[in-house]
Amino acid sequence: MDAAEFRKRGKEMVDYIADYLEKIEKRQVFPDVEPGYLRPLIPDCAPQDPESFEDVFKDIEKIIMPGVTHWHSPYFFAYFPAASSFPALLADMLCGGIGCVGFSWAASPACTELETVMLDWLGKMINLPEEFLAGKDGQGGGVIQGSASEATLISLLAARTKTIRRVQLEKPELTEADIMGRLVAYASDQAHSSVERAALIGGVKMKNVSSDDTFSVCGSALKKVLDEDKASGLIPFFFCATLGTTPCCSFDKLLELGPICNKENIWMHIDAAYAGSAFICPEFRHLLNGVEFADSFNFNPHKWLLVNFDCSAMWVKKRSDLTGAFKLEPLYLQHHHQESGLVTDYRHWQIPLGRRFRSLKLWFVLRMYGVTGLQDHIRKHVRLSHQFEHLVLQDERFEICAEVVLGLVCFRLKGSNELNKALLKSINEAKKIHLVPCHLRETFVLRFAICSRTVESTHIKFAWQHISQLATALLKTWEQNHHQQLQQ
Amino acid sequence: MDAAEFRKRGKEMVDYIADYLEKIEKRQVFPDVEPGYLRPLIPDCAPQDPESFEDVFKDIEKIIMPGVTHWHSPYFFAYFPAASSFPALLADMLCGGIGCVGFSWAASPACTELETVMLDWLGKMINLPEEFLAGKDGQGGGVIQGSASEATLISLLAARTKTIRRVQLEKPELTEADIMGRLVAYASDQAHSSVERAALIGGVKMKNVSSDDTFSVCGSALKKVLDEDKASGLIPFFFCATLGTTPCCSFDKLLELGPICNKENIWMHIDAAYAGSAFICPEFRHLLNGVEFADSFNFNPHKWLLVNFDCSAMWVKKRSDLTGAFKLEPLYLQHHHQESGLVTDYRHWQIPLGRRFRSLKLWFVLRMYGVTGLQDHIRKHVRLSHQFEHLVLQDERFEICAEVVLGLVCFRLKGSNELNKALLKSINEAKKIHLVPCHLRETFVLRFAICSRTVESTHIKFAWQHISQLATALLKTWEQNHHQQLQQ
Repeated sequence: MDAAEFRKRGKEMVDYIADYLEKIEKRQVFPDVEPGYLRPLIPDCAPQDPESFEDVFKDIEKIIMPGVTHWHSPYFFAYFPAASSFPALLADMLCGGIGCVGFSWAASPACTELETVMLDWLGKMINLPEEFLAGKDGQGGGVIQGSASEATLISLLAARTKTIRRVQLEKPELTEADIMGRLVAYASDQAHSSVERAALIGGVKMKNVSSDDTFSVCGSALKKVLDEDKASGLIPFFFCATLGTTPCCSFDKLLELGPICNKENIWMHIDAAYAGSAFICPEFRHLLNGVEFADSFNFNPHKWLLVNFDCSAMWVKKRSDLTGAFKLEPLYLQHHHQESGLVTDYRHWQIPLGRRFRSLKLWFVLRMYGVTGLQDHIRKHVRLSHQFEHLVLQDERFEICAEVVLGLVCFRLKGSNELNKALLKSINEAKKIHLVPCHLRETFVLRFAICSRTVESTHIKFAWQHISQLATALLKTWEQNHHQQLQQ
Repeated sequence: MDAAEFRKRGKEMVDYIADYLEKIEKRQVFPDVEPGYLRPLIPDCAPQDPESFEDVFKDIEKIIMPGVTHWHSPYFFAYFPAASSFPALLADMLCGGIGCVGFSWAASPACTELETVMLDWLGKMINLPEEFLAGKDGQGGGVIQGSASEATLISLLAARTKTIRRVQLEKPELTEADIMGRLVAYASDQAHSSVERAALIGGVKMKNVSSDDTFSVCGSALKKVLDEDKASGLIPFFFCATLGTTPCCSFDKLLELGPICNKENIWMHIDAAYAGSAFICPEFRHLLNGVEFADSFNFNPHKWLLVNFDCSAMWVKKRSDLTGAFKLEPLYLQHHHQESGLVTDYRHWQIPLGRRFRSLKLWFVLRMYGVTGLQDHIRKHVRLSHQFEHLVLQDERFEICAEVVLGLVCFRLKGSNELNKALLKSINEAKKIHLVPCHLRETFVLRFAICSRTVESTHIKFAWQHISQLATALLKTWEQNHHQQLQQ
């Protein structure tokens, strides 16, 4: 394929994508395929000789689409949103076309510099304390990671290195292995599994801190476990606070937790993967109060800020904490400017070496929506979640299971976990909408997340009517079964 | 921006990318900008109100392009190639359009299943042993990672978990911290810095094994260090062999190293990030002999197989080694099919949770080039590197510093490191071509890597003439200075 054919096929692909997204609600949101569906549909081996674009293109509808879960359908209410917008798609095309690999400043100066400035823009939009911004010569700054998991891992590793160095000075009798064996990281019992995974990767202990009855961690709960652990000779070194937990979008109490972490020399990382985007609206910014106590902060514009995956924004107060944990400088990666102190080599801020020009997506989206356009998007989602909440509350068979703060509604039928599992099963088997569940303590709960960029009030009404009808049908059979069981 | 405007702007972007790539050789390969160039060119903050696409678009040439290092210019000979092709760009557009997040089978079945089958296709193309393939019910299989760094890290972590479990059974008196403190990973002194970094992240010791005079690690060198370390109570657990080292594209001796690793219960990972693509040509496949001894193997189609970044292909013989090291199952990620044993949840195979539909790129590229088309690409690059080697060898002022096996030529002026540093400086300051250096032992060497998809024999000739002229000029002043110094 030469440039001339790319011009033709690229334009066909643009139309295909526009068609796909314009008509997405006509597709069944969750596919019918069974595991292993794809292998029999395609050859065993790559072809020896080139195939035409037409051949490949027609297989998209034949082979791929039947197995796609349509995350951008307005009937998709599962997990959390995956952002998508036209400006981000355009920026990603440009990113691919330039195709630079930005591991160091010299490897493509624009790639590094736009990222630094975009993270400052974004930091200002959520009113992050100045210390987190790079500015012209700040000690902090932002970086785009691939996912919140990586941001959590990177901050845990930086904290680990920093703590080992400190303890080695204080207690020279301890070996590095001794110290490693005593380190403990903490997070809410509501925190995402990626926090536990980060500790597993970093080879350190991890303990859950009990959340309160609003599913938030408060200062006293953290204090209690720290006191116990210190008394038994352990070394607390890292606390991951969550703003907007995955199960029910609860918020840890930063204003209580932050001062404790600071006093105890514990690195506080804030994972606001989903909720963070909302902080661009002044009415939600209070949820971030206490960030001033944190060492690192992360949220995912690729979830809720219309920037296509992947774009996970992370800030640190001291960039030297990250680079100090990882810096290795082989000659083939050195360059003329790196000792100048003016440049950022982002490879020291992340797990992989290579990196794409992802800041183009932020640049396109922030400019083409503007702050007000993005605020509108967040507010629409929050409004729709309250609409759904309201519909649930009007039906006395149902209950709301956690405060609805942003775009997630946790709800269930009043009744057993089995009943609610059966309801979810009937919803997902009907495939008109798609949801996933969670546990809140021992309770099985349905999560209704406002996801699609194009979801409107009518879709919410439809979803609720549908759920309500399925519940009616379910309750009828459920009671009959229950009645029969009693008779037997 | 609505779908109608996306159709218009998307097509403009396709043309912009086609223009950029068609005329890339007219652009100066390395930019003129100084650190900090970009910040003054754009506003301090994101705009409140939306800007038009035209405004954003015109800033690409004004703000971005002056700071881009053009990796796809035929005058770019630095690092290793970053792959780029039109079919891969089309596939990436589709990936963005679908915009699914494929952390589990259910999150988008096509995303998982195409990846498994594509990695089988690719594995067969390089004649990987059957054990590494997923097939219909194999224990092994492949996965797309973001980078070779992640593949190395993942395999080191899997090896760590496996070894800790084994040693705990053998020596129940040791705690996990004791075992962690004794674990040692190994790699060649020529290995990429990402191996050292993986050990740093995993919290284990890492030792270099001395390479021989061809910059390859042989069995006896590994044997020696293992014997010493075992005698002092350490636990060797991981060896990363490199095929195609970054400095000079040397090859560790798998047929000697593999049996040692197998006998000593050491996980052997093979990092063939650059060289791996060449194994699709039968005449280079012998370089992979010994892979049958490995536990995991990785190479980067995003380097040399025309698949745009990121697409790092990794295979393991036992998928349970990876999933066993990481598996955590919160309810919101569980799904109906996951206990069936038929499905793959790739989130257990990698560091991040989220993942894009990257196998589309492989599917498009493998089909639209065919095996023969990709072999032609590899063979052209190898031919061009030998052309450059031949030109260097004809000039008695220069020497070749390592055997030219694939697309990399290491060369230098006969003379001091300072002289060669001065030569590289004059080359990179002229900005007609772009190279990076390396150290081979104490020797400063220039690396000439064949990179661009569109590089031809004429570009090689031009590059050599240019280098040769700069060397002539340099040697003249160098001798004058030397003469002056002698007179002073």
